[in-house]
Amino acid sequence: MCALQLPFSQTEYDRRLKKTREAMAKAGLDMLFVEDPSNMAWLTGYDGWSFYVHQGVIVLPDAPPIWWGRTQDANGALRTVWMTQDRIVPYADNYVQSTERHPMQALAVLLKEHGGEKARIGVELENYYFSAKAYLTLREELPDAAFLDATALVNRARGVKSGEEIAFMRKAARIAEKVVDGIVERIQPGLRKNDLVAEIYADTVRGIGDDWGDYPAIVPLTPSGADAAAPHLTWDGRPFQAGEATFFEIAGCYRRYHTPFCRTVFLGKPPQYLLEAEKALVEGLEAGLEKAVAGNRACDIAEALGAPLERAGIERGARCGYPIGLSYPPDWGERTISLRTEDKTVLEAGMTFHFMPGLWMDGWGLEITESILIGERGPAECFCDRPRQLFVKD
Amino acid sequence: MCALQLPFSQTEYDRRLKKTREAMAKAGLDMLFVEDPSNMAWLTGYDGWSFYVHQGVIVLPDAPPIWWGRTQDANGALRTVWMTQDRIVPYADNYVQSTERHPMQALAVLLKEHGGEKARIGVELENYYFSAKAYLTLREELPDAAFLDATALVNRARGVKSGEEIAFMRKAARIAEKVVDGIVERIQPGLRKNDLVAEIYADTVRGIGDDWGDYPAIVPLTPSGADAAAPHLTWDGRPFQAGEATFFEIAGCYRRYHTPFCRTVFLGKPPQYLLEAEKALVEGLEAGLEKAVAGNRACDIAEALGAPLERAGIERGARCGYPIGLSYPPDWGERTISLRTEDKTVLEAGMTFHFMPGLWMDGWGLEITESILIGERGPAECFCDRPRQLFVKD
Repeated sequence: MCALQLPFSQTEYDRRLKKTREAMAKAGLDMLFVEDPSNMAWLTGYDGWSFYVHQGVIVLPDAPPIWWGRTQDANGALRTVWMTQDRIVPYADNYVQSTERHPMQALAVLLKEHGGEKARIGVELENYYFSAKAYLTLREELPDAAFLDATALVNRARGVKSGEEIAFMRKAARIAEKVVDGIVERIQPGLRKNDLVAEIYADTVRGIGDDWGDYPAIVPLTPSGADAAAPHLTWDGRPFQAGEATFFEIAGCYRRYHTPFCRTVFLGKPPQYLLEAEKALVEGLEAGLEKAVAGNRACDIAEALGAPLERAGIERGARCGYPIGLSYPPDWGERTISLRTEDKTVLEAGMTFHFMPGLWMDGWGLEITESILIGERGPAECFCDRPRQLFVKD
Repeated sequence: MCALQLPFSQTEYDRRLKKTREAMAKAGLDMLFVEDPSNMAWLTGYDGWSFYVHQGVIVLPDAPPIWWGRTQDANGALRTVWMTQDRIVPYADNYVQSTERHPMQALAVLLKEHGGEKARIGVELENYYFSAKAYLTLREELPDAAFLDATALVNRARGVKSGEEIAFMRKAARIAEKVVDGIVERIQPGLRKNDLVAEIYADTVRGIGDDWGDYPAIVPLTPSGADAAAPHLTWDGRPFQAGEATFFEIAGCYRRYHTPFCRTVFLGKPPQYLLEAEKALVEGLEAGLEKAVAGNRACDIAEALGAPLERAGIERGARCGYPIGLSYPPDWGERTISLRTEDKTVLEAGMTFHFMPGLWMDGWGLEITESILIGERGPAECFCDRPRQLFVKD
């Protein structure tokens, strides 16, 4: 074993590898190349901000996974993965961002050494880090291999969480609660938004006691007033104003495991339409939580949420949630299931979601969300324990 | 014009568009689809953490650019881009992370409307956000179009910075200096590393006066002692220890413009090998800065750096820098030029680099770096003004 302080037991990594190999067998794959950093970490423990260059994990049916990456990152692999040193294979630095050569030429050589020349190789076609050029280069280098779309094969295997993973998410939830408490306590008219975001970051990273905080895969999203119509604005240096609502989309993160948690704060006396939206949204959340139980489908949650919103005349149009857990930027979702009416995926106990029915309307926005754990019986358990409401500071 | 508070003048956006169209003409492109969020922002002003779903900018030779993205992000586009509302084209939410449809099917329809059916269309084949699946889907949807590799076409246009851009980078540099000052002031044996990182984040985001801090595209990298052999480790909750060096790879960021800046702090009395490495590294930095001047080549900097390191018996093996400026995660580099012996690119006045000769050796690491501005005469100007040394706290 390489790493001194693995976050999980070897039993847990063995479980993950077994599950992945079963999915590979089902998909008829001889080997799998995984470039998604979340999948790499889940399978091997690898942790480092090196995913801006090509790297990956090769999963084989009958031998331990191989970490493959840039030479300078092999030392990071040595410190974080459970495999032995001979399973760490670096490529030379002059492949990085070169116009003369591509790292996939080096990977192709390695795949050949492991029987890849004529193999059925799974690749993540829809992924941030496996570029179009990477795919084209691999195909060119291994013309007799078959490249099959294994997008989300590992992501789906990650869906049902183990006890060890849920314990991490509970720690992340404590951090998320602390961050939201800090927001509600500190926000006031005149405070510059970036000064509050500075405190959000500090609370996130300080963590709680021995449970130090890791960086969430998304930065705080904090639009105010009419800007809250736009879900993905970050922050600027303007002060908070009386008469405006600001939503805070944040997450606690413990060793790459996330519990996103969103709350909205109104400074002053909220207008009637916002109070009515709050009421419908909370009713929808509670109806959705009731349906969030093993055996029901993803769409059942979306439909339960939709009914009270529809009665209040609110049309959302967007999905209302996604699975969560281990993540690296740019997304803290697992990109498999979507909580929306057309997704009929059957829920299983141990799945975890961000139930995220953000309202981004013309001229205003409202976010009240819950990170949830699906159980055998409903309603789903909420990871965080804070009032499910619009916070008002008058 | 849509946005109320554009970071740059319209003249500046016009300059960028003109430069991009010239490069398109030279490459024989009828249109260009840009998915890189840094390129999107540079061309249009678009700013938001929405790049975890497909989005992009279509650049046409004879009409304003089109922002294309998820419906819920159109409100963010309205608030941040310089084009008028009719140039903002959203796609429906059920394309997002769907197994039934792909956003590129919607993009293909839009490209057709603008003459894309049989056009020569540039796409960024080597990019984090334009996936292999996106490319394959576009090709399938537009079988009579020709897709040409326009990787880094816009990135290269970004290379030489305008006065407005350099002013932003100077603001970022002030923030980077403040962050490094805070590190040197606060670090001491027994302080938990995440508690120091919390302060790093807070300083970064508070900024200086009215110049509020934006999020850097890379999180703080802070390995200590033997772990500093690994350049891309982040942090954990262990306390700093006497007798260890820690390098801090950080950046100031002002409205998405970065000046990375790295310094190393030793707690206690540094060993002789580290002092010798410091001496060789500083000598190499200064030799490299002398060569960092318009008309010289990227490789000249690398070679100047290399000589004193070689004399000290230090073999790096990695490139020693890259262009910097506007960036979104996961990288604050521009991914065009690399400061290394095989890159013969001729330097131009106004180019900006992170001169980054990190030493990641067996059992120790040392980072002393400078963000630099190439001038007509050498040496290059360093954006930050702090001692170029190993900091020692005894």
